Amino acid sequence: MQSLVDGARAVVVGAAGGIGAAVVERLARDDRIGRVEAWARRPLEPAGKVRTDGVDVTDEASIEAAAARLEEGPLDLVLVTTGVLHDDAGLRPEKSWRQLDAGALARSYTINAIGPALVAKHLLPRLRRDHKAVFGALSARVGSIEDNRIGGWYAYRASKAALNQILRTLAIELARRRPAAVCVGLHPGTTDTALSAPFQANVPEGKLFTPAFVAERLLAVVDDLDASASGGLYAWDGARIPF
Amino acid sequence: MQSLVDGARAVVVGAAGGIGAAVVERLARDDRIGRVEAWARRPLEPAGKVRTDGVDVTDEASIEAAAARLEEGPLDLVLVTTGVLHDDAGLRPEKSWRQLDAGALARSYTINAIGPALVAKHLLPRLRRDHKAVFGALSARVGSIEDNRIGGWYAYRASKAALNQILRTLAIELARRRPAAVCVGLHPGTTDTALSAPFQANVPEGKLFTPAFVAERLLAVVDDLDASASGGLYAWDGARIPF
Repeated sequence: MQSLVDGARAVVVGAAGGIGAAVVERLARDDRIGRVEAWARRPLEPAGKVRTDGVDVTDEASIEAAAARLEEGPLDLVLVTTGVLHDDAGLRPEKSWRQLDAGALARSYTINAIGPALVAKHLLPRLRRDHKAVFGALSARVGSIEDNRIGGWYAYRASKAALNQILRTLAIELARRRPAAVCVGLHPGTTDTALSAPFQANVPEGKLFTPAFVAERLLAVVDDLDASASGGLYAWDGARIPF
Repeated sequence: MQSLVDGARAVVVGAAGGIGAAVVERLARDDRIGRVEAWARRPLEPAGKVRTDGVDVTDEASIEAAAARLEEGPLDLVLVTTGVLHDDAGLRPEKSWRQLDAGALARSYTINAIGPALVAKHLLPRLRRDHKAVFGALSARVGSIEDNRIGGWYAYRASKAALNQILRTLAIELARRRPAAVCVGLHPGTTDTALSAPFQANVPEGKLFTPAFVAERLLAVVDDLDASASGGLYAWDGARIPF
């Protein structure tokens, strides 16, 4: 378990989100991290070693442009923390097949699966070659097909299963180009953010995590993984989740 | 392993495709089958017990309308044989992340994952309640995340992984509403159709199947499965494929 290099450069995509903001904050406090690039749809305020830029993962041109504006030199860590479960435009997790909706399925896929794929397209070629580097994207245990016991949430589950497949496929290609690099999906657990807000009532005591706790855990997990873990799906506690 | 009822009614979606047409033909020759509903984008010619209708799985209204035109009474078998790997509009399986394209990812998902989901939405409520009934959709071994060893084909792999998740989620809901029913993904093997045509060069001797062979095998697999198999992914030889 090799750590990232000293002075590592990180990119956090979705830096205005509940988990994304906590990850940026945690990285900024880490002395081993030299630079944090915080990407959000509306650019945040830069501060100290945190640079900011405007990126919408549903708009490939914005990803490409932000990638072109990065300083020269390799990236050590890319974390994609974007994702959608429900939104103000009427996207709601389905309780039954009766609620299946082509638009909702497509929108979930665009944000949860295509978005991280496009970020990978433009940032994997920037990953460090001579030392461990990590590309991680927030996935979810409910995206596991094997682990699916209670059903429902069609659009979200399907888009996250697809994301897990995309990450696995990227990992295979990455292994040929960057043998020390790692590409994984990360399950944060249920975190107290806008995404989980409507669904927190049944979360067991002690299982609703703060964004700060999750940021700490996910960065510890990423620190621990090596290239043999690439392509897998890992929970906040480091446990491997089946596909 | 309970068989379908005598005089069973089947719906084949994608009945003009290589595998779909062979499935219709095989069902029409089966004395146990009373009626075959053959759905294709351009309606086929009806013949004997084969009725036909025009359905495009990317157009929910066309599915709903065709479902409303079905004769009264329960369905015993629904097979969705639609799918896309490449098309004349420039869709090509990616060899590298450099070829990732938002439009191609979305289009593959619309046809390969959303299409079968919409068919399920309108036909699962029509499945027979008092006896085994089957909903099956053509998936693919390359959609298995666990089984992914060589990478590439991002859009196709991701859409089929998502389809496997949708089928599993449907199976969980179906078990509550139709305990004897089965909902599965089916891997046909490499079949001599337009879908595989550009990729047949490396298929080992004896492993490129005729559509007639595959239709025979898939119907035998479907005949053998019972409700305990629901939610799974099965190959042409009946072997379970991991997710």
